[in-house]
Amino acid sequence: MHGETEEAIENLVDETVWIKVGQLGKLINGFKEHSISECVMVGQVAPGNLFNLRPDLRAVKLLMGLKTKNAHSIFGAIAKELSSEGINLIEATPWLQPAMPGEGFTVGPTPTSAQQADIKFAHQMAVEIARLDIGQTVVVKDGAVLAVEGWEGTDDCLARGGELAGKEGGAVAVKVAKPGHDFRFDIPCLGPKTLEICAASRLAVLAFEAGRTLLLEREVVERAAEQHKITVAAT
Amino acid sequence: MHGETEEAIENLVDETVWIKVGQLGKLINGFKEHSISECVMVGQVAPGNLFNLRPDLRAVKLLMGLKTKNAHSIFGAIAKELSSEGINLIEATPWLQPAMPGEGFTVGPTPTSAQQADIKFAHQMAVEIARLDIGQTVVVKDGAVLAVEGWEGTDDCLARGGELAGKEGGAVAVKVAKPGHDFRFDIPCLGPKTLEICAASRLAVLAFEAGRTLLLEREVVERAAEQHKITVAAT
Repeated sequence: MHGETEEAIENLVDETVWIKVGQLGKLINGFKEHSISECVMVGQVAPGNLFNLRPDLRAVKLLMGLKTKNAHSIFGAIAKELSSEGINLIEATPWLQPAMPGEGFTVGPTPTSAQQADIKFAHQMAVEIARLDIGQTVVVKDGAVLAVEGWEGTDDCLARGGELAGKEGGAVAVKVAKPGHDFRFDIPCLGPKTLEICAASRLAVLAFEAGRTLLLEREVVERAAEQHKITVAAT
Repeated sequence: MHGETEEAIENLVDETVWIKVGQLGKLINGFKEHSISECVMVGQVAPGNLFNLRPDLRAVKLLMGLKTKNAHSIFGAIAKELSSEGINLIEATPWLQPAMPGEGFTVGPTPTSAQQADIKFAHQMAVEIARLDIGQTVVVKDGAVLAVEGWEGTDDCLARGGELAGKEGGAVAVKVAKPGHDFRFDIPCLGPKTLEICAASRLAVLAFEAGRTLLLEREVVERAAEQHKITVAAT
């Protein structure tokens, strides 16, 4: 997608069809022209851009039919629209499993008992927030919720939470998948950029849901965790 | 309190004793020296400052005894500590009732049906967030939660939500009291400054809980609502 995906992707794949966010008709035509009956979603659309898009007729119709507009309702409707054209949106997780660390995964410093309590508390809060369909990330410190992810996305939420922890930093962030999360169109995702944000915002812990989170460039993440003394753990 | 309260307060009252946030021992001694047995809290302590304070011995003891640290647990413990010294913290609401608009209060443009739906949705979400002891303000647009208040306070939450609504703005904000809200030490509060933030962030609606919210400088707020075409309503 123009403005969302790096152009270098053209060198890694057999063929590329570029669309803009909102060009649902063009997406479907692209699949049909190449006789594609199965597809996966990978990569990210910045949620903020969904308010500034110029939807084509097909996307307008789809958006108007939605009661609530969040990532899941929008992408769910897209999946249904694709399916009505014989194009099956499937999970990318079978190919990505090795990049989704399971229980017991932990790098960086061993968390203190206070941090362990904060991880547990932030996890509970994040599950509630995800259940309400608001966001997936919560940042806490000393049992206080500093930041809840809304429409701004994980990175901005982490940065805000880090700032709100005061001069000494030390906040604890947890990111979860939604209950009944649809992994076809949204896999919770962390990577080197996330770690850079945690470091800049002096977060102490970044925890994520075991087996349900994509850890991009694991080795880079592990080096960054050691270097910046940030605990990165599956929970 | 130094750094929290305007010094001009000295001209409006019989006597002033200045303390810093965190000087609980000095606060109690101040009350005792003046034989005060009843007190009210008015005004605000910026929550962010609670991480940068230098508590005295008495405050350290109090904070160490807390399982969770949020405005309610902290001020609740302070009320208990005062009470153990024979100083009764009472609600300021009897004096403030005229400044707390009830059901039916509305100024500025009549909300569209889409905005009415967003007010209802934001109110439900704000109640959930308040129930979880996270914050009291939620900003939505078109059925999507843009921003949830955490530790940053209402103003920053409004500003963020407004920005996340995209170029055209039009977000809807709702602020509520907590279920079982303790009005002795925290009254949900809106005023001219809130309206300025709403205007700068192009919010369309600012709604608050009827009879449970302090509206500061109502006439200024009403003029600002008309001028900036912002609906201000009790819900």
